[in-house]
Amino acid sequence: MNNFSLRTDLALEVAESLTKDEDDNIKGVKLYFEEDEDIKISWVVIEDEEGQEAMGKPIGNYITIESEAMKENDVLVHEKIIDMFSQNLINLCNLKEDTNILIVGLGNWNVTPDALGPKVIDKVLVTRHIKETLPKELKKGVRMVSAISPGVMGLTGIETAEIVKGVVDKVKPDIVIAIDALATRKTSRINATIQMSDTGIAPGGGMGNKRKTLNKETLGIPVIAIGVPTVVDAGTLVNDTIDIIIDTLIEETKDGKEFYNMIRNLDKDEKYEIINNVLNPYTGNLFVTPKEIDATVERLAKIISNSLNIAFHPDIDFDDINRYIS
Amino acid sequence: MNNFSLRTDLALEVAESLTKDEDDNIKGVKLYFEEDEDIKISWVVIEDEEGQEAMGKPIGNYITIESEAMKENDVLVHEKIIDMFSQNLINLCNLKEDTNILIVGLGNWNVTPDALGPKVIDKVLVTRHIKETLPKELKKGVRMVSAISPGVMGLTGIETAEIVKGVVDKVKPDIVIAIDALATRKTSRINATIQMSDTGIAPGGGMGNKRKTLNKETLGIPVIAIGVPTVVDAGTLVNDTIDIIIDTLIEETKDGKEFYNMIRNLDKDEKYEIINNVLNPYTGNLFVTPKEIDATVERLAKIISNSLNIAFHPDIDFDDINRYIS
Amino acid sequence: MNNFSLRTDLALEVAESLTKDEDDNIKGVKLYFEEDEDIKISWVVIEDEEGQEAMGKPIGNYITIESEAMKENDVLVHEKIIDMFSQNLINLCNLKEDTNILIVGLGNWNVTPDALGPKVIDKVLVTRHIKETLPKELKKGVRMVSAISPGVMGLTGIETAEIVKGVVDKVKPDIVIAIDALATRKTSRINATIQMSDTGIAPGGGMGNKRKTLNKETLGIPVIAIGVPTVVDAGTLVNDTIDIIIDTLIEETKDGKEFYNMIRNLDKDEKYEIINNVLNPYTGNLFVTPKEIDATVERLAKIISNSLNIAFHPDIDFDDINRYIS
Amino acid sequence: MNNFSLRTDLALEVAESLTKDEDDNIKGVKLYFEEDEDIKISWVVIEDEEGQEAMGKPIGNYITIESEAMKENDVLVHEKIIDMFSQNLINLCNLKEDTNILIVGLGNWNVTPDALGPKVIDKVLVTRHIKETLPKELKKGVRMVSAISPGVMGLTGIETAEIVKGVVDKVKPDIVIAIDALATRKTSRINATIQMSDTGIAPGGGMGNKRKTLNKETLGIPVIAIGVPTVVDAGTLVNDTIDIIIDTLIEETKDGKEFYNMIRNLDKDEKYEIINNVLNPYTGNLFVTPKEIDATVERLAKIISNSLNIAFHPDIDFDDINRYIS
Repeated sequence: MNNFSLRTDLALEVAESLTKDEDDNIKGVKLYFEEDEDIKISWVVIEDEEGQEAMGKPIGNYITIESEAMKENDVLVHEKIIDMFSQNLINLCNLKEDTNILIVGLGNWNVTPDALGPKVIDKVLVTRHIKETLPKELKKGVRMVSAISPGVMGLTGIETAEIVKGVVDKVKPDIVIAIDALATRKTSRINATIQMSDTGIAPGGGMGNKRKTLNKETLGIPVIAIGVPTVVDAGTLVNDTIDIIIDTLIEETKDGKEFYNMIRNLDKDEKYEIINNVLNPYTGNLFVTPKEIDATVERLAKIISNSLNIAFHPDIDFDDINRYIS
Repeated sequence: MNNFSLRTDLALEVAESLTKDEDDNIKGVKLYFEEDEDIKISWVVIEDEEGQEAMGKPIGNYITIESEAMKENDVLVHEKIIDMFSQNLINLCNLKEDTNILIVGLGNWNVTPDALGPKVIDKVLVTRHIKETLPKELKKGVRMVSAISPGVMGLTGIETAEIVKGVVDKVKPDIVIAIDALATRKTSRINATIQMSDTGIAPGGGMGNKRKTLNKETLGIPVIAIGVPTVVDAGTLVNDTIDIIIDTLIEETKDGKEFYNMIRNLDKDEKYEIINNVLNPYTGNLFVTPKEIDATVERLAKIISNSLNIAFHPDIDFDDINRYIS
Repeated sequence: MNNFSLRTDLALEVAESLTKDEDDNIKGVKLYFEEDEDIKISWVVIEDEEGQEAMGKPIGNYITIESEAMKENDVLVHEKIIDMFSQNLINLCNLKEDTNILIVGLGNWNVTPDALGPKVIDKVLVTRHIKETLPKELKKGVRMVSAISPGVMGLTGIETAEIVKGVVDKVKPDIVIAIDALATRKTSRINATIQMSDTGIAPGGGMGNKRKTLNKETLGIPVIAIGVPTVVDAGTLVNDTIDIIIDTLIEETKDGKEFYNMIRNLDKDEKYEIINNVLNPYTGNLFVTPKEIDATVERLAKIISNSLNIAFHPDIDFDDINRYIS
Repeated sequence: MNNFSLRTDLALEVAESLTKDEDDNIKGVKLYFEEDEDIKISWVVIEDEEGQEAMGKPIGNYITIESEAMKENDVLVHEKIIDMFSQNLINLCNLKEDTNILIVGLGNWNVTPDALGPKVIDKVLVTRHIKETLPKELKKGVRMVSAISPGVMGLTGIETAEIVKGVVDKVKPDIVIAIDALATRKTSRINATIQMSDTGIAPGGGMGNKRKTLNKETLGIPVIAIGVPTVVDAGTLVNDTIDIIIDTLIEETKDGKEFYNMIRNLDKDEKYEIINNVLNPYTGNLFVTPKEIDATVERLAKIISNSLNIAFHPDIDFDDINRYIS
C-alpha cells in the first residue's frame, strides 16, 4: 500500500493507541498527566530502546499542552498557556545565559494549515544582528536569536535538512528550535494542542511528505521540535471511523465471534484500497481542516512566538529593545 | 440528527445516486452526456414536479463541465473549457444586446476554499460605470456589467439575499450571475468540475451554512448560478466510505442475508452519532480539501472570469476597453 | 490642471493651513486641543456657513486622535486610545439603547493601504443575525450591529453610495458608521492619526478617487465617518516640500522682495506641470507609504474594531456572546 | 546626512545622470540601445576601473529591458519580453548543458513591493530533487535548478549573504541567479523595467537597507542579478523634483547668474535637512509606489519565472515534467 498510512505526529496519540486508559503502561515509557479547568498537560518519556520500538519514536521527552482555548480569542487562558509553554521549553532546552539559538519555521507559506512555522518566524524577536550594538544594560537579558523559513522541498528542490545544515554551519547556534504544523488522528486536537520534544523532527509531517530528519545527528546540535496539529489526514480519519463502526458492530452483535470471522474477509489491504479509491486522485494529499483555519493559525503563531520571546529573553523590556530594531 | 447531512451541491451527483448507470433514468428528469479526451459535459434537465421531488432540486437546467485539467496549468485545455463554458452560459442566460448583468461573488474571502466567488469578482471586467463615456464604436460589443462580493452572514450579520436584493433594487439588472464554491461527494470532482444552472442558488452551500435562496422569486429577475466544488464535507466523506465498506462486506459474505440482518443493528442514527463523535467538536464545520487549494482556486477564478468576459462582451478588443477603465 | 490637487482628508490639516499657530482662529470654526505624553486629541467644530466656506468642509464636528503608539505594538497606549476613541464615538453617535447600527468598510481589500475599512469589517462583532436568538439576560447590552464591505467602483462598476443605499433600504439602520483610509499632507501623521466626524464621507479619499458622498442627504440617516491616513499623495508631498524650500530661500535671501519677484515667474500651473511630468505616467495614482504598512494596517484595524465593539456593546461579556455566533 | 541618499539601482540611470544624451559617452563605459514600438533594450558595459569609478558600480554588463506593457495584461508583448529576456540571460549566464543553478529570491514576502523575489521562487520550476528520477529522454532538456527565499535580515537576524553562502556550500551550484526588487529615480520606470547584470547584487536595494553583496567574491561562483524597480524612494523623488524646479527657475530668470548666486545659499545639506524634516519620522523608509502594486508584482513574477524556465530548460515539454513533480 503506497501513499497511505495512518498518520499522527503526536507521541501522546501513539501512547493512547497502545494503552487502554491513563493508568495502563507501556514498557520503557513513562506517562504523566496534569490538568486544570483550562489546560491539560502530558509528559511522555521514552526511556529506552524497548520504549522506542513500541512507540516508533526516538528516546526522549514529549510534552503536550492541550486547551480548547488556543483556537478561541481567550486572552487570559492564552497567557496561562504561554507561561506553561515557556517554562517547559526552558527546561527542555537547558538554556544558558549565552546560548545562541536558531529558530527554524518549517512548512509552506502558501498553504494555510502548513504556514504555522513561517508565521512564527515573522513574529519572533531576532537579535543576532543587533546584539553587538545594544547598550550593556540591555544586552544581559537578551539571548542571541536568529530565525529562518527554509521553505519546502517542492518549492526549493533542496532537502530542508540540507538548507538548515548550511545555515547552521554559518550561524553556529548552540541549539535549533524547529516549528512545524503536524497531523493528529483526533479532530478534537486540531489547533488545540502544542507538542514539544527534544528528539528532533522530520519536516513535512503535517502535510504527509516526510523528509530527512532535523536532529542532533544530522545537524550536530540539539534540536527542539515544537508542533501544532492543524489537520487530520483524510485517509486516517476515514479509517479510524470505520474501525470504530466495526468495533461497535462487533460489540452489538450477540454472536460477536461469528461476525468477527465474517469481517476477517475484509482484510487490511482491502480496506485501504477502498479508502484509496474514495480519495482518488488525491491519495495522501487530502486533509481535513476546520474552516476558521486562517484566523486560528494566526492566533497559534502568536502564542508560540510570544512563548519563545519570553523563554529566550527573560529580563528584557520589549519597548526598550524595539528601539534597536530597524 | 442536527448539524449533519450528506452534502452535495451537484445535481449530477443527485442523479447518479438515483440511477444505476448512464442509461438508467429518473421520471421527470432528462440526462445527456458528451465527452472527449479532455472534457466531459453533462446536462441534467428537471422537467416537472415529479423530477423536482425525486431530485430535491428545483425544475430547470443543470450543466456540468468536468475536466482534470482545470486544476492543472494546462492552457490549451483551459481555452477549450472557457469556450464550452461561455457557449453554454450564453444559451442559459438568453442574452440580448442590451442585457444589464449583475455578477455576485458569494463566499468568504478569508477562507481559501470559499473565496472563489470574491476572486472571480476581482477579475471580471465591469463596465457599468464607464459605458456612457465609451465612444460609440466600442459601446456596441460591451454589455453593461456590474459586480459585488456581498460577504457571508457571519461577517455581515445580514442575510446575503437581502444585500443582493438591496443592490438589485438600485442597479436594476436584467439578470444575476451568482458564483459560489460548492460541496461535492466525490473527491475526484474537487476543483475539477463547474456546474451552472438557471434555478438560482442558496449561498453558503460549500461551507455547510445554507442561507436564503437567490432566485427569480426572491430577486424578481432570473438568477444563473455558477459553482465549483472545492471541498467534500468531512462527515459526508466518512459516511460514504463506510457505506462502500458495508456494501463490500455484504457482497463478499457468502450468506449475505444473515450479515445484512446483523448490520441492521447499526441503524442510520447510530452511524451518524459515531461520525459526529469522531468529528467532535467541529461537526459540520470540517471540510476535506487538497493542499494545493490556494493556487487552484486562483486558477479556477481565472477560467470563470475569462468565460464571463467572453460571454458578455463578445466583440470587444480588451486592449481598447482597458483605456477607458480607471 | 486635471488629475492633480493638494490632498488632505483631515479637517485638522485644513485648519492648520489656515492658521499660524494653535492660538490663531478661523471665523466660524472652533478649535480645541488636549494632550498628554502619549496622545493628542483635537476638536475642529465648523459652526456655520462662513466656517464651512473657509474650511471647504461641511458644518459639523471633526475629532482627531494622534499618537505615534498606534503604529507600534504598544498595548498599554492602545488601551488608552481605544478608551478615548469609544468615548468620543459614543458622544458623536448619540446612541440609544436600541440604536440599529450599520458599519461600512470602504476601500479596496486588494490594495494594502486602502484595505483598512474591509479589515475592520472582518473584525467587528456583528449581532443583527443572532439578536433574536440571544437569551434575555444577554440581549440588553448588545446593540443590533451589521456590517458590509461594498468594494470600490473600479471593481464593482457601481457607485459605492448606491450599494450602501441599497443595503440601508433593506437593513433599515438608524445610523451608518463608515470606515475609510485617508490621505494626509504630513508624513508624521501616516498610520498615527484617527479622525472621526459626523458629516459623512466621500469614499476613495485616500486613494484619490473621490466618489459620491455618504451622508444624511444621500442615505437619509446620520453618517459617522472614521478614517486613518495611511498615505500621502506623492504629488502633494513633492509640492509641499518645494513650497518649504521656496519659503526658506525667500527668508534666507537678503533681498527677499527681488527674489520673490523672480519666482513669480514660476507660477502655480508651471509648478504643477513639472510635478506632473515627474510623476508621469502615474499622476494622481502614486502614493507615499511606509514599508511596514501591511503590519500597521492590521494593527489599526484592531484598534478601531475594538473601539467599535466597546462603544456599541458596553455591558456584554465577549465570552458569553461568542457562544451564540456561528 | 545619515539615512538619506539619492537612490537608484539601475546602471542605466547612473549613466543617464552622467551624460547629456544618448550620443554622449563616459570614459570606460560603453552604451548601446535598441528599440521597437513595444520594447526598449539598453546595454551598459563598464569596461575598466575608470568606468567603474565614474559609475560607482562594478565592472561588468548591465542589460535593461523597458516596456510599459510589463505592468499591463498584454500577453503578446509579454511573450516578446520573455523571449528577449531569456535570450539575453542565456548569454549572460554562459550556460552549459549540465550547469547547476541556484535561484535566490531576495526581499520580504510581507511587504508587497519587496516581495518580487519570493514570488518568483514560488513560480519557478525546480528540478534538483527529481532530476535523478526522471526518465532518460526527459533528463536531457532539464537543467538542475534549485531555489530559495532567504528572507531579510530584519526577520532572520542573519546577513542574507551568510544564509546564501551556507546553502551554496551544501547545494554546490555553478551559478547563482538572484532576483530582487529595486529602486528607480524615474516613476515612469516603476514596474516597467527589468535589469540584469553579471556583477552580483547587494540585497535590500529597493527598500533602502543595503546589505553585504552577493557576488563571485563572497559566494565563490558567478552571480547574475535580475531586478525590477518597484518603488521610488520618497526622498529621492522629492529631491529630483526640486532640482528640476530650480533648473527651470534658473533657465527662466533673465539674469540666471544672479539667481544662481542666490540659491547657492541653499546648500545641499540644507536641502537634505528640509527633505528629511518633511519625511520625518520615516526618513529612508518611505517609498512611492502605484496603487496597483499587488497585481503588478504578481504579473512581473510571472514574466520573470517564465523567462527563467525557458532559459534553463529549453527543450522540455512542461506537461511531461509536471508528472514528476510531487
